[in-house]
Amino acid sequence: MITCSKDRVKDKIETFSKFGDAGNGGITRFCLSKEDVQAREEFVKRMKAVGAEIVTDDMANMYATLPGTEEGLPRIVIASHTDSVRNGGNYDGILGVITGMEVIETIVAENIPHRHPITAMVWTNEEGSLYPPAMMSSGVICDKFDKATMLASKSVEGKTFGEALEESGYAGDEKNRLNPKDYKAMLELHIEQGPVLEAENKEIGIVQGVVGMVNYRIRTYGQTDHAGTTPMPYRRDALLAAASAIKYLHEELDKLDSNLVYTTGEILCHPCIHTCIPDFVDFSLDSRHQNPEVIKQVVEVIKNMPKEFDKCEVKYEKAWARNTVAFDEELVNLAQKSADAYGYTSKQMYSGAGHDAQYVVDMMPSTMIFVPSKDGHSHCEPEFTSVEECWKGVNVFLQTVLEIDKK
Amino acid sequence: MITCSKDRVKDKIETFSKFGDAGNGGITRFCLSKEDVQAREEFVKRMKAVGAEIVTDDMANMYATLPGTEEGLPRIVIASHTDSVRNGGNYDGILGVITGMEVIETIVAENIPHRHPITAMVWTNEEGSLYPPAMMSSGVICDKFDKATMLASKSVEGKTFGEALEESGYAGDEKNRLNPKDYKAMLELHIEQGPVLEAENKEIGIVQGVVGMVNYRIRTYGQTDHAGTTPMPYRRDALLAAASAIKYLHEELDKLDSNLVYTTGEILCHPCIHTCIPDFVDFSLDSRHQNPEVIKQVVEVIKNMPKEFDKCEVKYEKAWARNTVAFDEELVNLAQKSADAYGYTSKQMYSGAGHDAQYVVDMMPSTMIFVPSKDGHSHCEPEFTSVEECWKGVNVFLQTVLEIDKK
Repeated sequence: MITCSKDRVKDKIETFSKFGDAGNGGITRFCLSKEDVQAREEFVKRMKAVGAEIVTDDMANMYATLPGTEEGLPRIVIASHTDSVRNGGNYDGILGVITGMEVIETIVAENIPHRHPITAMVWTNEEGSLYPPAMMSSGVICDKFDKATMLASKSVEGKTFGEALEESGYAGDEKNRLNPKDYKAMLELHIEQGPVLEAENKEIGIVQGVVGMVNYRIRTYGQTDHAGTTPMPYRRDALLAAASAIKYLHEELDKLDSNLVYTTGEILCHPCIHTCIPDFVDFSLDSRHQNPEVIKQVVEVIKNMPKEFDKCEVKYEKAWARNTVAFDEELVNLAQKSADAYGYTSKQMYSGAGHDAQYVVDMMPSTMIFVPSKDGHSHCEPEFTSVEECWKGVNVFLQTVLEIDKK
Repeated sequence: MITCSKDRVKDKIETFSKFGDAGNGGITRFCLSKEDVQAREEFVKRMKAVGAEIVTDDMANMYATLPGTEEGLPRIVIASHTDSVRNGGNYDGILGVITGMEVIETIVAENIPHRHPITAMVWTNEEGSLYPPAMMSSGVICDKFDKATMLASKSVEGKTFGEALEESGYAGDEKNRLNPKDYKAMLELHIEQGPVLEAENKEIGIVQGVVGMVNYRIRTYGQTDHAGTTPMPYRRDALLAAASAIKYLHEELDKLDSNLVYTTGEILCHPCIHTCIPDFVDFSLDSRHQNPEVIKQVVEVIKNMPKEFDKCEVKYEKAWARNTVAFDEELVNLAQKSADAYGYTSKQMYSGAGHDAQYVVDMMPSTMIFVPSKDGHSHCEPEFTSVEECWKGVNVFLQTVLEIDKK
């Protein structure tokens, strides 16, 4: 089996981790920032060095393409993002970009024949750290978001994404956008961002799709009064009610499918003073599962929740939802076959996090693979995947690209 | 029975409610602000009009004294504060100041003989809204706080209390401070700030003391991870643990004395993002009871709490505590006798909130009475006590002053 170069993979991981080095083993590399531009320059330099042609589209997405031997065939693209969250890690996003680069470098170095052009691609603003929402550019390209609205998206400092785009010098032509006529398939390698592969001792996650989710806000309404002067029987404590509601929801949701995940990550308390009984609490409930029937059961649990806890009214409001996205079955099978060919242990699984590939799959065949995340950590500086594990992931996509190329 | 003037009480409540009118039936009148100075000027004007002599001390506490008929006797003082919290009500503090003024005005108007000088007093910065802590000046006068530290107390805008004091022009001489040689007793009338008197249909609360309290911070330590990618069995959710701890503490504390009050008013969650499992929650637990044995039981409950909830470590830290303060028994009995003399319904009770009188009682005989708070609300614009109820309270202290004067 042909494999890519472990040394080159290691060198790229180390080189890119300097752009935005946050000092604790990770990076802060916001979309189109100085650090992001450094990463983009490195991408251009390395791709030009192996003879790839570089173009950018109007959202500053970058495409480095190695021509194929047969005229007029569509491209096979491997894509991910260079931007990070604040104090993020050296793997989320950039490892998918490194994968595209390494596949191209290996094909050039090993002189591997290929009929189709191969493209390594960088998506702009996947994290949405400065300019929300996340997955902004794939959303625009795949008609999920309105471009004008996205250009107006503002950082907390007041700069718009449109201004950042112009300043960066990376905005190109709309005609260069990823599209189903010129491109045959998109592949994205990503770290798992969860503990499953490591815990189950699997080397590769074959991603079948991205789980659907529903996000609710749940609010409790009490009465604020003095903590010292209000006897317990007179109280309507909105925080006690929220604690009761959180416990109730956990007990009820635990009865549903064991693959369901649900989280209360955000809680707001008013007036949040230690000498005042709280009169208002607002908390989030994020639930995800690949089966829409399970999501429906979650919504039923919320709707059937008592209208009152601890004498406080409880209300709920749906904040948003997204359906489960299935990746292209043929590509999923090819990725599985490639992993098997190397003898790597693998697991078919759903992604609990969102990725650009979930928008792209509506436009053209797409799929993803995961490599393990140490201790399941991501979006933080301790995020880690060994060079060996990364290298195995890149090999799987090298083989997958060559399999697609045959078709 | 001699009574004070309902019309004059009403006029004073209405007049003072203009100084800092916040537009919704209440006031914002921060200590030594323009609005507070307006209230102080009104106090001076009215007290001068009835022949009282005005002095201030070095903390800008104000004393308006009506001489008595017998030379060399100590003064009887009725005191409270003119400052408020943000969007506070028209009764907290100022009603005690109005009581002192009205007692003096009645004594003058009705030409009531009295041997001792009678003083109406204004405490500076009881609320501590701009310059913490609360009860700052009584704390300095009664040796609870260091004056230099208090002068350095800073508002969020960066002004020190010392600067505000100087600018106000109300700083006077240290020799004018309330002291046990020149003063015989201090009385403070206050709104209850709780629902008990109204619920039990009592007109006067005879305050036996201020309850002791203990304040803890309780913290849960989990692991933050992605809300979508971390299966439930792998999670250590610090907010779920906090909800469990709050429920546990309520269940255990509910088993203790029924007069115990306890409150979790403040909760902080990290990172507080709806897509992240929380790794750290910090919440307050304020507990108050007149009996130190019950407070000890509260501490035992906290110490015996499980060291772990939902796989998250739980730690506790004592933030502060204060002992129960008993008011002067003879004065409490005199206040009770005075209320009975008017035929007012009354209830002996402890104050759950802190008041200047609790510091003063260490220096000289002091006590308080309460009048009802509509719906128990205070520190908010809907705070309300009817003129009739206020008037009855003032009558009780008019009579109490005259009883003290006999001794």
